[in-house]
Amino acid sequence: MIIKPYGYQIWERIQSELDLRIKSAGVQNCYFPLFIPESFLSKEKEHVAGFSPECAVVTHAGGKKLAENLYVRPTSETIMYDTFAKWIQSYRDLPLKINQWANIVRWEMRTRPFLRTTEFLWQEGHTAHATKEEADQEAERALQMYLDFDRDYLSLPVYSGKKSRKETFAGALYTLTTEALAKDGKAIQAGTSHQLGQTFSKAFNIVFQDQVGQNKLVWQTSWGVSTRIIGTVIVCHGDEYGLRLPPKIAPLEVVVIPIYKTDQEKKMICDYLQTTIRRYLKDFRHHLDLRDEVTPGFKFNQWEVKGIPIRLEIGPRDLKENKIILARRDSRVKSSISESHLVEAIQETLSQIQANLLMEALSFQKTHTKEVLSYPEFKTIMEKEGGIVIGHWCEKEECEINIQTETKATIRVVKEEIPKAGKCLICGEKASKKALFAKAY
Amino acid sequence: MIIKPYGYQIWERIQSELDLRIKSAGVQNCYFPLFIPESFLSKEKEHVAGFSPECAVVTHAGGKKLAENLYVRPTSETIMYDTFAKWIQSYRDLPLKINQWANIVRWEMRTRPFLRTTEFLWQEGHTAHATKEEADQEAERALQMYLDFDRDYLSLPVYSGKKSRKETFAGALYTLTTEALAKDGKAIQAGTSHQLGQTFSKAFNIVFQDQVGQNKLVWQTSWGVSTRIIGTVIVCHGDEYGLRLPPKIAPLEVVVIPIYKTDQEKKMICDYLQTTIRRYLKDFRHHLDLRDEVTPGFKFNQWEVKGIPIRLEIGPRDLKENKIILARRDSRVKSSISESHLVEAIQETLSQIQANLLMEALSFQKTHTKEVLSYPEFKTIMEKEGGIVIGHWCEKEECEINIQTETKATIRVVKEEIPKAGKCLICGEKASKKALFAKAY
Repeated sequence: MIIKPYGYQIWERIQSELDLRIKSAGVQNCYFPLFIPESFLSKEKEHVAGFSPECAVVTHAGGKKLAENLYVRPTSETIMYDTFAKWIQSYRDLPLKINQWANIVRWEMRTRPFLRTTEFLWQEGHTAHATKEEADQEAERALQMYLDFDRDYLSLPVYSGKKSRKETFAGALYTLTTEALAKDGKAIQAGTSHQLGQTFSKAFNIVFQDQVGQNKLVWQTSWGVSTRIIGTVIVCHGDEYGLRLPPKIAPLEVVVIPIYKTDQEKKMICDYLQTTIRRYLKDFRHHLDLRDEVTPGFKFNQWEVKGIPIRLEIGPRDLKENKIILARRDSRVKSSISESHLVEAIQETLSQIQANLLMEALSFQKTHTKEVLSYPEFKTIMEKEGGIVIGHWCEKEECEINIQTETKATIRVVKEEIPKAGKCLICGEKASKKALFAKAY
Repeated sequence: MIIKPYGYQIWERIQSELDLRIKSAGVQNCYFPLFIPESFLSKEKEHVAGFSPECAVVTHAGGKKLAENLYVRPTSETIMYDTFAKWIQSYRDLPLKINQWANIVRWEMRTRPFLRTTEFLWQEGHTAHATKEEADQEAERALQMYLDFDRDYLSLPVYSGKKSRKETFAGALYTLTTEALAKDGKAIQAGTSHQLGQTFSKAFNIVFQDQVGQNKLVWQTSWGVSTRIIGTVIVCHGDEYGLRLPPKIAPLEVVVIPIYKTDQEKKMICDYLQTTIRRYLKDFRHHLDLRDEVTPGFKFNQWEVKGIPIRLEIGPRDLKENKIILARRDSRVKSSISESHLVEAIQETLSQIQANLLMEALSFQKTHTKEVLSYPEFKTIMEKEGGIVIGHWCEKEECEINIQTETKATIRVVKEEIPKAGKCLICGEKASKKALFAKAY
């Protein structure tokens, strides 16, 4: 996948905001190598079993066959933790909290731009702690950071909670996830946070001396969000006219399109845009689309597809009346604004769009979440409408696999609270948990 | 190479400033794939000959042998320009100016942290233009951007100009370079800008229709700066006590160290630092080093090695007199500042350090640049002092190779102006150029 400038600007906006939030939690950025020696990846059994089948492998370099194969990182636990073992000696070195922004390769059979790509960009946080409780808290903190970011910045409501054992990150004690709901009724994982327990500290011998001189294994977490989040925004907010971007991540907040017929009108309006209007727009990310070779209708369409939150249209009559037409991308409602109120109107509309996209998505999530008591009911909903279906589950992997084979739905989140009573949707045995099921990207 | 948080913060400061300068030149960021199919790399003969011997090659992925080998990008011309051919159709699509921040792999036999590493981080700008003149100007603009950045931000004076044919980027018409001079008398390339001519537009068929409907090949440039620039700062500014960082890229501008003997003094001083002093320092990147397990002397040493521009020391007597000791890292001169002037003193000292590092480096560059008329003289200087030696050169590659074989010096820059008369240092034949020679990193 090539990320073109427009898409990359969205990523830059996501990256800079998330980076601030990561740093404000006391996490420091660093950079580890792209290549992982085979012997590193193999140190943790579950991990290598989970990842090595989807790795790209460097066998030759500098014109020679390598003595040891190098794996292009599918995630960086093993390459980082080999070094953590050297960095961490004493309780004074804990907690260790680092993050890196990097490219990742996982060989995919079927790819979809932004949603499933062989190479993607992400941030991966990795922390080490003295106790299980601290690592639990850190995994929870990262999840909460993603929840807040999704809601405040991307206008995305998400379900969150633990993954089932089967869907847990290879090597982790448990995985926390945020799950958004796409317009087509499919769930999409937006960010994950793993409590790694002592799996890797055992494999890599990451030991610290505590305050009383005893050697102990550290407890670890890792957590990440990738360019997939851009795909999530697209499938959750898009409509039949194209993309709808939350203003906070839109490369442009406002696009301005002149409407004219004669050369004289063109000159008059373009002058007005380049002087007066440009001045009003100086504090907004904006673009004056003065192209002459395409019609206004073509431009409207093009910027709607790209999802720019606000379009301003100005024709000769508007100019005469000191009015500007403001069209919202989210609702596609137009209104006429007097020039003197333009800045306030834009500010207010941007906030409204940011809030409205969240509200619409919340309402969609609500109407597409159903709770069922029987498997036939489950199957009907899953087949006809998709969305999230909640039901009892006995916690057996067998049932999880059966439901997936029969309906393509997987467990997205296991609910924490223990239900009063109930029978597993699939096997009918006593179930002490409920789960959120959905087909997923 | 692992870039630890301290080093990565330096890179982040370099990156954010350079990114602003790149964007202000109308260049847009994007992201292209890490893997280059063998058939792409092979399309331009000189380029593949130059780069393929130092590539890492992916032969297996997803558990299978690949039908076509993938090269881990040693630079992105070929992967990008295959796409440029699709993006560019008309003169309206020109100039196309893009940049990417990415990791790069070139297999190195002997590595040195930051200076020569198998994987490094960089930015690579790639532009396409309608005419040779425009591409010349763009190559020159990028060079000038690097020169300004080196001087203003890194306090680095550099020599700049064209590389010899032998040292030109594989596939380029010519390469412009900036060359810094390390404390050990070796030159180090700090950034390069290539006028690629039509080499790649021919190989990848990048054609545009001009205003009168004719199909023409584009003219291209590429230019880049890498994490090697951090190595350059280290070897150019460091002294016997460690690193000396220009304040603009220092992760911390000020470090504060309390001096105390008794517990009572400790409490008094640490309270004062955490309240009063912290307030004064709020607009500076600062750190209060309150560790109790190491001595002040240990801390002084540690922060000197790390190159923090300013150290503040505060002991019981200073506190009583409302004084603070300010120690400059560059000159290691200490002065006593009254509390009320602290902010101004820090501001002023940071500017002075930024300027002084440049001045010292300029003076070093000047005293270590010699002009010679004979080869024996050249050899003596190169052997005893190193540095830059300027002399006549007949422009034959044979002489360039001979001088390198005999003295290890290479041509860093070919001078533009034509000298009055002269004989080639090596072969003694008529020389119409002068060149700057040096041993290099």
